[in-house]
Amino acid sequence: MNLVNKKGIVVRNIARAERQQLSRFASYGVATVHEAQGRCGLLDARVRPVQQNCSVAGSAVTVLVTPGDNWMFHVAVEQCQPGDVLLVAPTSDCHDGFFGDLLATSLQARGVVALVGDIGIRDSQTLRDMNFPVWSRAVYAQGTIKETLGSVNVPVICAGQLVNPGDIIVADDDGVVVVPLAQAAKADAAAQQRVALEETKRKRLAAGELGLDIYQMRPKLAEKGLRYIDSLEDLQNL
Amino acid sequence: MNLVNKKGIVVRNIARAERQQLSRFASYGVATVHEAQGRCGLLDARVRPVQQNCSVAGSAVTVLVTPGDNWMFHVAVEQCQPGDVLLVAPTSDCHDGFFGDLLATSLQARGVVALVGDIGIRDSQTLRDMNFPVWSRAVYAQGTIKETLGSVNVPVICAGQLVNPGDIIVADDDGVVVVPLAQAAKADAAAQQRVALEETKRKRLAAGELGLDIYQMRPKLAEKGLRYIDSLEDLQNL
Amino acid sequence: MNLVNKKGIVVRNIARAERQQLSRFASYGVATVHEAQGRCGLLDARVRPVQQNCSVAGSAVTVLVTPGDNWMFHVAVEQCQPGDVLLVAPTSDCHDGFFGDLLATSLQARGVVALVGDIGIRDSQTLRDMNFPVWSRAVYAQGTIKETLGSVNVPVICAGQLVNPGDIIVADDDGVVVVPLAQAAKADAAAQQRVALEETKRKRLAAGELGLDIYQMRPKLAEKGLRYIDSLEDLQNL
Amino acid sequence: MNLVNKKGIVVRNIARAERQQLSRFASYGVATVHEAQGRCGLLDARVRPVQQNCSVAGSAVTVLVTPGDNWMFHVAVEQCQPGDVLLVAPTSDCHDGFFGDLLATSLQARGVVALVGDIGIRDSQTLRDMNFPVWSRAVYAQGTIKETLGSVNVPVICAGQLVNPGDIIVADDDGVVVVPLAQAAKADAAAQQRVALEETKRKRLAAGELGLDIYQMRPKLAEKGLRYIDSLEDLQNL
Amino acid sequence: MNLVNKKGIVVRNIARAERQQLSRFASYGVATVHEAQGRCGLLDARVRPVQQNCSVAGSAVTVLVTPGDNWMFHVAVEQCQPGDVLLVAPTSDCHDGFFGDLLATSLQARGVVALVGDIGIRDSQTLRDMNFPVWSRAVYAQGTIKETLGSVNVPVICAGQLVNPGDIIVADDDGVVVVPLAQAAKADAAAQQRVALEETKRKRLAAGELGLDIYQMRPKLAEKGLRYIDSLEDLQNL
Amino acid sequence: MNLVNKKGIVVRNIARAERQQLSRFASYGVATVHEAQGRCGLLDARVRPVQQNCSVAGSAVTVLVTPGDNWMFHVAVEQCQPGDVLLVAPTSDCHDGFFGDLLATSLQARGVVALVGDIGIRDSQTLRDMNFPVWSRAVYAQGTIKETLGSVNVPVICAGQLVNPGDIIVADDDGVVVVPLAQAAKADAAAQQRVALEETKRKRLAAGELGLDIYQMRPKLAEKGLRYIDSLEDLQNL
Repeated sequence: MNLVNKKGIVVRNIARAERQQLSRFASYGVATVHEAQGRCGLLDARVRPVQQNCSVAGSAVTVLVTPGDNWMFHVAVEQCQPGDVLLVAPTSDCHDGFFGDLLATSLQARGVVALVGDIGIRDSQTLRDMNFPVWSRAVYAQGTIKETLGSVNVPVICAGQLVNPGDIIVADDDGVVVVPLAQAAKADAAAQQRVALEETKRKRLAAGELGLDIYQMRPKLAEKGLRYIDSLEDLQNL
Repeated sequence: MNLVNKKGIVVRNIARAERQQLSRFASYGVATVHEAQGRCGLLDARVRPVQQNCSVAGSAVTVLVTPGDNWMFHVAVEQCQPGDVLLVAPTSDCHDGFFGDLLATSLQARGVVALVGDIGIRDSQTLRDMNFPVWSRAVYAQGTIKETLGSVNVPVICAGQLVNPGDIIVADDDGVVVVPLAQAAKADAAAQQRVALEETKRKRLAAGELGLDIYQMRPKLAEKGLRYIDSLEDLQNL
Repeated sequence: MNLVNKKGIVVRNIARAERQQLSRFASYGVATVHEAQGRCGLLDARVRPVQQNCSVAGSAVTVLVTPGDNWMFHVAVEQCQPGDVLLVAPTSDCHDGFFGDLLATSLQARGVVALVGDIGIRDSQTLRDMNFPVWSRAVYAQGTIKETLGSVNVPVICAGQLVNPGDIIVADDDGVVVVPLAQAAKADAAAQQRVALEETKRKRLAAGELGLDIYQMRPKLAEKGLRYIDSLEDLQNL
Repeated sequence: MNLVNKKGIVVRNIARAERQQLSRFASYGVATVHEAQGRCGLLDARVRPVQQNCSVAGSAVTVLVTPGDNWMFHVAVEQCQPGDVLLVAPTSDCHDGFFGDLLATSLQARGVVALVGDIGIRDSQTLRDMNFPVWSRAVYAQGTIKETLGSVNVPVICAGQLVNPGDIIVADDDGVVVVPLAQAAKADAAAQQRVALEETKRKRLAAGELGLDIYQMRPKLAEKGLRYIDSLEDLQNL
Repeated sequence: MNLVNKKGIVVRNIARAERQQLSRFASYGVATVHEAQGRCGLLDARVRPVQQNCSVAGSAVTVLVTPGDNWMFHVAVEQCQPGDVLLVAPTSDCHDGFFGDLLATSLQARGVVALVGDIGIRDSQTLRDMNFPVWSRAVYAQGTIKETLGSVNVPVICAGQLVNPGDIIVADDDGVVVVPLAQAAKADAAAQQRVALEETKRKRLAAGELGLDIYQMRPKLAEKGLRYIDSLEDLQNL
Repeated sequence: MNLVNKKGIVVRNIARAERQQLSRFASYGVATVHEAQGRCGLLDARVRPVQQNCSVAGSAVTVLVTPGDNWMFHVAVEQCQPGDVLLVAPTSDCHDGFFGDLLATSLQARGVVALVGDIGIRDSQTLRDMNFPVWSRAVYAQGTIKETLGSVNVPVICAGQLVNPGDIIVADDDGVVVVPLAQAAKADAAAQQRVALEETKRKRLAAGELGLDIYQMRPKLAEKGLRYIDSLEDLQNL
């Protein structure tokens, strides 16, 4: 684990999840996947979608960049395959516009399905028009330079989470969650089960049943001491 | 007033506004209602709509929760009636995802018109698809637990405002304002009057009349010392 | 430059850019214009559009206001001409709702194309319905008073940038950039050239060529010491 | 409760706590008092001390101000008595420097023990030199005007808490907590008991006893499923 | 004014204020100077002192830097003279640690009296031990590189204010204010007068006189409609 | 790396650095250690010291906690040895007061040298009086509960950095840096060398030599195109 954020390296070959599994993760969505793997792996709430109504999942090609320098994006493009997500982490806080429509064109040409980064991006309108989805911490036109090495496909810390190259990135309107590749099968199964269970619950709730009864909460609430009173006036007299 | 944020209590019966009055408040919108009641009751600007182009008004069923714990939502659902707004206040800062589509299904089944909370929510895309409007401080998939008592229908402080159960909550794209139930009639009348007045002003302004003339501001501006000069060069010589 | 933020002044006559040039700047967009003038003039990332998919350019009528006081807006309207952008700077941090649909009606009647301000605004839904575009730091219903003088058409600092009256304001989904009037021709030419160049690059990138090759980055990367390795296992052995 | 933040009013007579009780609250400190009254009444964490190593308690003289306007401070001074704390709430977010050494001189002349406000203050160095303690959300030299009425001694919402005039304000390096006057006796007794209990615990802990044993946590931890393993290697094999 | 933030330039000769005038400004302090020049020139509240109880004034040697790059500091040192303040503005938001004890040693060797910047700094403890005062937006150990040109002694925007080289920078525990060199004499006189006036007021206030009377506020308050009532009970009946 | 933030686990035995090496790291300080290991491992700037003038280094006993729940602190105490630093990471953003003087007493009894956490703490004044140093993201009296399991001595992400149990934590007025145990020897040597080099540079700079000359920057600056001009007037004519 000492190799997190190691600079000056490009790793050429990484393991990736199967495309069908990625499709399933995209359909589960972030909240379900996050629950299914025990509430781990959620990126900080500051990373937000640039578009709406879009849910993706892909294999992480990680990019480590220095603040205000997007040189490594070009190095990363060459390492991308169809179904990948470019996952970008700066070594220090920066919301400059590292990424725009030209880089998106290049990624799209290689079949990359999204960009996720704890960075700023620009050309947001064009990106939406191109149907290239992006999750970022800011939309900001400030340009970047190409002077300093970072890395591609090393383990990185992005918005508070460790991401290894090849890990599964799931992103939708709720944010972004990372699923370690080695845990994908387990998370996949758990998510599938969760979706099925929720469907049942949803029907019962829609029919007017109460969660209090479905989840049998009343005894535990009583034991904790919850008191029901008739009116605010009674509250004064407690 | 000592009973604000009192924990472990559910108040069963609260006074509510009439449905027709609530409809009127929804049609006035937040900015107008806020003005009509003397610029009081506006929740902090951090509470923002999850959807766009939606204006609602309802009777507050208040929910006091502890950070990261959404147990009280289930208790609250049972207390809700058609036309209510669930108004959620945490006892300490927290933007976890307390609320999602299952709870929304349950609330919708009871006729609740919206959720407003100084909290995070999740399943944002599904909530929009369901047409269940939400105002929150964050969209974030982080789950919550069910371990600690809060309260339902006690007075709470939410995003900087005191809300009593039964108070009228008005929410639209501009944010959220609370109207104390006892002041509803007065605010209603004032808002109606304001809407009429604004209609007149809008027509005059659209026709090109100046606010300077409509509001007769020129004498007061002159008295305060406003100086008109011809060019920036003259500014150098002042 | 000592006259920045000078209070109590209205300057009646200011130089403005030609309408055709403004149209061109609107079509370039913020990111391109910002690059074209050497990465200067970008307002702070906190100033964000209230609407989506809108790009404008206009001549700045500057308004200096005191926190929570929108009196000067009415003075400013009279100084506006078709093609102008109202550019508002407070003398101290404030996100109250200085601006709403009535003022927008008045500006629209005079042909003003947008409002840009380091302030809060309200009536956001109505503003979108009116097709009057706004860039602001907050949407917040909090009202303002009319008690204190500011200025119209003096140089101001707005969201971290100096704006002189008559400067060109370009705004789109990426934010806002200011082009000093004296540099407009130069920035215009540079932007036009940049757009042409980008078109070429876009085609090559879309065809699958790599930026690494188009921009001939490989030698410089090698010189800086970038190392390609075959797998994460090799990383452990470096 | 509908009278919260009512403008244009000065209430001349308010109930106050006894000076000896105030002294006791100051000695307990904020964390203890907050616990003793069931974890209620804590002002938002943004309100911080301007000085260090100072603990005070006093009766709240509440001041409602409009953003950027400190006129009401002068009205409030006249209502103050020895042992009071001036508690200031703006009707909308503002961190301008409402308060400085001249007002502090005036308050000190009347025996006021501290200023607490969700506002900015200035002359911070002089305030420390004068030994006049202040808790604020910012230190900022920006001046304010005297144009708009607020109120003195009406109920206000300050940094997320309801404060009634005469409530007890306790402030130290940890922040600020408000004790409703009607609950003062109960909170006082609970705090005293808590202090005694903590003293015992502190001795046992200092002697090396573990909280795990003192609080008998081991069974509950085991029941929740806590697993002890010998090394990180074993973690891999779980 | 088109030359603000112009890159790649070092201006060798700038006008500076006299040392005696600088001493006077340091003794007035930030709040007084800010008032004396009509409440202009205050840097954003995010720029805070690293030390306490220190008040300085000096002539600005301006440094324009790119985010994460401190190369220009070394260029700037050579342009400094005794009595200068190094005033640093980044072209885009960055709180990396641009400045530490080695650069401070170099500046101290040339008689520079302080560093003020909208940047991060490091070695904060050593800087305090050296008695080299610093005002910054962050204390953060993150290092910077030396790759990109900025400028020395061009006009810059720093924390929301325009600063020309040679302008007077006044900094103390309340923050930082800039006085344009051309207005120094006027501001100096006004500040001196203000200090004298405040001394008189301070004595009267300390003796227990009320601001209400000293400033004759009672009639205006009455005219605005301020109502005095006897108790909170009366408030209910208004 | 899949075991980061794994819940419900206590690891009993971890490798630790030697006490003499820890002493050396404390003497180097954060900025130097951060540089010495290639600018890695710095915690986010939001984690700040509660005291001043204190530099420590220790072996990390990691604690994973859920928001608003400090139960795991008690479990962690038992795992601590003299020379350890308690390093606390929440699974989701929370600035409640997880830690106070009783827990500090317990840690001090076991020889723990400091607490570092991306959390809030309380009893700040007592902690300083006890000479128990703390680095945290907030000082806030809000209490926590003891309901949910976390972990002790598993790998965690804290304020943006991966920390393995036993890693070296260095903290001073500039913030906090983590040195992976396996890299400690290398970082130690590099830091020692850096300290020696800096001593030499410091003497030369103090004697008035310029960094421009010591680091031979002039040719590279010229090559990049830096232009020296005589005055601001010349700037106008460029």
